[in-house]
Amino acid sequence: MKKVAVIMGSDSDWPVVKSACTQLESFGIPYEAHILSAHRTPAAAADFAKNARKNGFGVLICAAGMAAHLAGAFAGNSTLPVIGIPMKGGVMDGLDALLATVQMPSGIPVATVAVGGAKNAAVLAAQILAVSDDALAAKLDADRVDMAAQIAVKEAKLQSELV
Amino acid sequence: MKKVAVIMGSDSDWPVVKSACTQLESFGIPYEAHILSAHRTPAAAADFAKNARKNGFGVLICAAGMAAHLAGAFAGNSTLPVIGIPMKGGVMDGLDALLATVQMPSGIPVATVAVGGAKNAAVLAAQILAVSDDALAAKLDADRVDMAAQIAVKEAKLQSELV
Amino acid sequence: MKKVAVIMGSDSDWPVVKSACTQLESFGIPYEAHILSAHRTPAAAADFAKNARKNGFGVLICAAGMAAHLAGAFAGNSTLPVIGIPMKGGVMDGLDALLATVQMPSGIPVATVAVGGAKNAAVLAAQILAVSDDALAAKLDADRVDMAAQIAVKEAKLQSELV
Amino acid sequence: MKKVAVIMGSDSDWPVVKSACTQLESFGIPYEAHILSAHRTPAAAADFAKNARKNGFGVLICAAGMAAHLAGAFAGNSTLPVIGIPMKGGVMDGLDALLATVQMPSGIPVATVAVGGAKNAAVLAAQILAVSDDALAAKLDADRVDMAAQIAVKEAKLQSELV
Amino acid sequence: MKKVAVIMGSDSDWPVVKSACTQLESFGIPYEAHILSAHRTPAAAADFAKNARKNGFGVLICAAGMAAHLAGAFAGNSTLPVIGIPMKGGVMDGLDALLATVQMPSGIPVATVAVGGAKNAAVLAAQILAVSDDALAAKLDADRVDMAAQIAVKEAKLQSELV
Amino acid sequence: MKKVAVIMGSDSDWPVVKSACTQLESFGIPYEAHILSAHRTPAAAADFAKNARKNGFGVLICAAGMAAHLAGAFAGNSTLPVIGIPMKGGVMDGLDALLATVQMPSGIPVATVAVGGAKNAAVLAAQILAVSDDALAAKLDADRVDMAAQIAVKEAKLQSELV
Amino acid sequence: MKKVAVIMGSDSDWPVVKSACTQLESFGIPYEAHILSAHRTPAAAADFAKNARKNGFGVLICAAGMAAHLAGAFAGNSTLPVIGIPMKGGVMDGLDALLATVQMPSGIPVATVAVGGAKNAAVLAAQILAVSDDALAAKLDADRVDMAAQIAVKEAKLQSELV
Amino acid sequence: MKKVAVIMGSDSDWPVVKSACTQLESFGIPYEAHILSAHRTPAAAADFAKNARKNGFGVLICAAGMAAHLAGAFAGNSTLPVIGIPMKGGVMDGLDALLATVQMPSGIPVATVAVGGAKNAAVLAAQILAVSDDALAAKLDADRVDMAAQIAVKEAKLQSELV
Repeated sequence: MKKVAVIMGSDSDWPVVKSACTQLESFGIPYEAHILSAHRTPAAAADFAKNARKNGFGVLICAAGMAAHLAGAFAGNSTLPVIGIPMKGGVMDGLDALLATVQMPSGIPVATVAVGGAKNAAVLAAQILAVSDDALAAKLDADRVDMAAQIAVKEAKLQSELV
Repeated sequence: MKKVAVIMGSDSDWPVVKSACTQLESFGIPYEAHILSAHRTPAAAADFAKNARKNGFGVLICAAGMAAHLAGAFAGNSTLPVIGIPMKGGVMDGLDALLATVQMPSGIPVATVAVGGAKNAAVLAAQILAVSDDALAAKLDADRVDMAAQIAVKEAKLQSELV
Repeated sequence: MKKVAVIMGSDSDWPVVKSACTQLESFGIPYEAHILSAHRTPAAAADFAKNARKNGFGVLICAAGMAAHLAGAFAGNSTLPVIGIPMKGGVMDGLDALLATVQMPSGIPVATVAVGGAKNAAVLAAQILAVSDDALAAKLDADRVDMAAQIAVKEAKLQSELV
Repeated sequence: MKKVAVIMGSDSDWPVVKSACTQLESFGIPYEAHILSAHRTPAAAADFAKNARKNGFGVLICAAGMAAHLAGAFAGNSTLPVIGIPMKGGVMDGLDALLATVQMPSGIPVATVAVGGAKNAAVLAAQILAVSDDALAAKLDADRVDMAAQIAVKEAKLQSELV
Repeated sequence: MKKVAVIMGSDSDWPVVKSACTQLESFGIPYEAHILSAHRTPAAAADFAKNARKNGFGVLICAAGMAAHLAGAFAGNSTLPVIGIPMKGGVMDGLDALLATVQMPSGIPVATVAVGGAKNAAVLAAQILAVSDDALAAKLDADRVDMAAQIAVKEAKLQSELV
Repeated sequence: MKKVAVIMGSDSDWPVVKSACTQLESFGIPYEAHILSAHRTPAAAADFAKNARKNGFGVLICAAGMAAHLAGAFAGNSTLPVIGIPMKGGVMDGLDALLATVQMPSGIPVATVAVGGAKNAAVLAAQILAVSDDALAAKLDADRVDMAAQIAVKEAKLQSELV
Repeated sequence: MKKVAVIMGSDSDWPVVKSACTQLESFGIPYEAHILSAHRTPAAAADFAKNARKNGFGVLICAAGMAAHLAGAFAGNSTLPVIGIPMKGGVMDGLDALLATVQMPSGIPVATVAVGGAKNAAVLAAQILAVSDDALAAKLDADRVDMAAQIAVKEAKLQSELV
Repeated sequence: MKKVAVIMGSDSDWPVVKSACTQLESFGIPYEAHILSAHRTPAAAADFAKNARKNGFGVLICAAGMAAHLAGAFAGNSTLPVIGIPMKGGVMDGLDALLATVQMPSGIPVATVAVGGAKNAAVLAAQILAVSDDALAAKLDADRVDMAAQIAVKEAKLQSELV
């Protein structure tokens, strides 16, 4: 199976970003996690992106806050799908990072998830890999059944409290 | 090759959305375009999403404005990757639709592109299908070479004006 | 008397939403409270809404945050009045949920109250039922007299402090 | 049947507000439309609200922009359901009026619709009256069938263009 | 000297509003403080405003949050200068109250100060009364000399730390 | 009677600002209008403000957009009441100017009106001068009677259209 | 004298950006203008920035909209002062580009001017070069005298209209 | 070497602003820090700015929040490069101060850094002085090598945790 790269601009992003790794592990998807900065290590970031497809990666996940250029820098250097996780921290509390991530120029998209949405970035990466992987698609479907079951448990608990 | 579904909530979205179709055609990707509303035809929308994988779709693109529930409604009924195009029209001129599209609950992502970003939604769909399709990946790489060439032409024109 | 349904998208909404239930009880209005998710249990949510009128409900109250599709999903499946309570939690601290709730397409309104406005949702439900119920209307009028009396007590306390 | 009052703060609101009247007429609901200002004719506005229930009104619709106090002024003087239509015109292009309308104090709700949402205000008023009026409820259900039929026509047109 | 009225919509505003009273006392300006609500005691609020000039008031200060109608309700019922203090508490953390206070219709201004700006509301009230009161104007000028002296003390302290 | 100074930061503000002058004339209030810039002619602006009281001014009206420092610069150099008119033109379409005008430091208020609110600035100036001028107060009261009469005419016209 | 580089992300920025070039010419400052994209020609952009100091540049001006990564990409590859001009075009009409430009990580600043502020970017570049160039500083001072003179002309024109 | 002036509007800004001083010291750049207020000590602030160039300053750094006029007041009185640090504290949590700082009129720029960006203001001042100071430029380049080395250490730590 192709690997997922989970890139963060700063080690301070790790407490949020690691839930992406946990989620990928739960699906049995191989991944690598790295710290690469669009501004402090721009050449290393560009090199990683340029070589990602031939190095066996299928999806790139990039997390960054404030000016939030990381996902865009990867998207400019690779035609793999790039998923952007905007991080809190700027003056608009993440909305700024969201807009710096999602508003890419024509021809160079970033698949953006919600601010701090590391788990959903991993689920989206799994959905992308599952387009050509029926076993993984089955795991995703099973995950939805679990979600509904969890709601049923909570609903039952609520009814028992209301009586 | 798997098909892409291009869904819009209203026929008034078509002038923007059709550039997604044009882009898919330029890559030779098969697609269907439909009008389905999360609020006016909720059962039909849910049915389409539930059956999309078995009907040969690989990626779902959904465009909607205002409360912008369409992409979310599809994502709740399918584990295929769903790409959301927020549309202008609400009181925040599309930022409202962007937030209604991107801020999905845990486990049910929508891959969101910029407001009105129909062309980029199609490029992202192509990138997703190209993860397991080297010929399509080669087309995407060629597209980037074209972009750089267009910049070079514009730069030359600028220099000729500046002399 | 017709019942009020109080629906929440997640059990985490309950601490806010239960003040709606408390208020309904104080007016003697029958109600049911349930957890139903527009994204995790979309079919169950649609079924509840479709059958609500024939099951004796007169008003539907729906609380949800983030993308906040719940009230809209109910409004798309019922012609009963739907009251939406936007919840905090998104990047705009509830303003996003407010816009995702209130900006419904033409023909399918959601009666929206303030972010976290569970108590006012219940008062609004009571006002709606009171249109054809003079006894309930009298309770609502008495409630206003109480409010004014509470202000008078606070004013007296303030004057005693100012002397 | 009880009447609906459609109140606007300025005659400049009429081009938007009249679509509420048109919608009420299409449902056969009796209504009155008036210009009353929370700031320029505060006593007349308060009197209208205080006497609305005994004068045969069942629902009050109030449209105002900018500081947008009209719906709140009516809600403070009546326990009938008050529907607020925020109007464009302020520095946030209606978002300001939306917040001035929806953020009512505890115990005094305003059922708020989208900015400029005059038609939906009328549909909501109809839904409220239909809680105790099965014939009107049937009209609302028929309206939904019409909406779906219109979507089907547009979908057919789109498919014919795509071939 | 004419009196200043300091009106608040809720006793919860008092911890902020009382700094207006403290400031008025420091200038020797007579004042009254009251709790009056635009929504819960609309008739009492209107009566106070209508009779304020003949009851010896020269300036009206009104503090309110959320929908923030209080200052506007006073301005609609009096031609005395009305100073509005927007309070925190709404979904935009006071910006909503600021806009609901300042965006008054043509002909009926509210002199608005910053969110929570109770002290500045009192200074502004003093400036207004000082237009025809030279002794009060002299106090205001002396206050400015004090401010500059306080800055000089802080500057000296900073320089001593920097050595 | 004391004069009102109407100051604008740029001659491009004049089309909006002149309605303040028209309104002052209608009340018979003497005024001067000047172009003075907080950034381009800072010394002249400071001098005008410092000498305004002794030169016979009672109220200072300042209009500026963008960074909108003009009203603040006047307030820092005078203890006369300063009324700020925020002007459109910045990236937030006037909201930026509003905040740059209203958020003054403690002790140095600016009485802020709505964006572009030149007429209301003049009415507020008149209200301030009327605190010690009963004849002017009577004109302001008469103005309110006129407003109500205009509403009555518009209401009558609306009723004639509705029949 | 050192040169100024004026870089734009797209030729569509030229109508705004050329006023920077005009301003530099009026000061007699040598400059080059180029089209370089952070996303479409990332390697060329990085190379330009890396070699700018040794190629005789003293200041880099970068204009970009939407995700607006250009100035940041230059700042990450050079320690010359980088001036960022945010451009209109995104969902927040330039505020998004402003935040994507100004919110740089610690250690890598971008000197940001207002949205579309091409002329001021050139003036700032001149101010930077003038720190060690007294003749240029004298030109800047003369420019300010001109500005004040222009205000005086406009003031005279206004007074002639008011008589 | 020319000095840098670090000016703050209030001593409460010092905990943030002192990191600018620390950074300047680490580069060996001489500086002075002062408290000067655009509103409380306007004449002293103007005098400092007017005389800054002849007093040996090369760059002026100004920190202020709320209405945030300080940097603009300095820029209006000097043609030295002025760097503005917007401070938190207003209703938009610093975005208001950012806009009040950056949106300067044509011809009078302020080089704006991020909200609270005191360290980056100092780095930018160093970059400006380094345009004509190769030794300082070498220090700035060395600083970038340090940054990349710190990232490498963090990356190594992350990899050791992931094994």
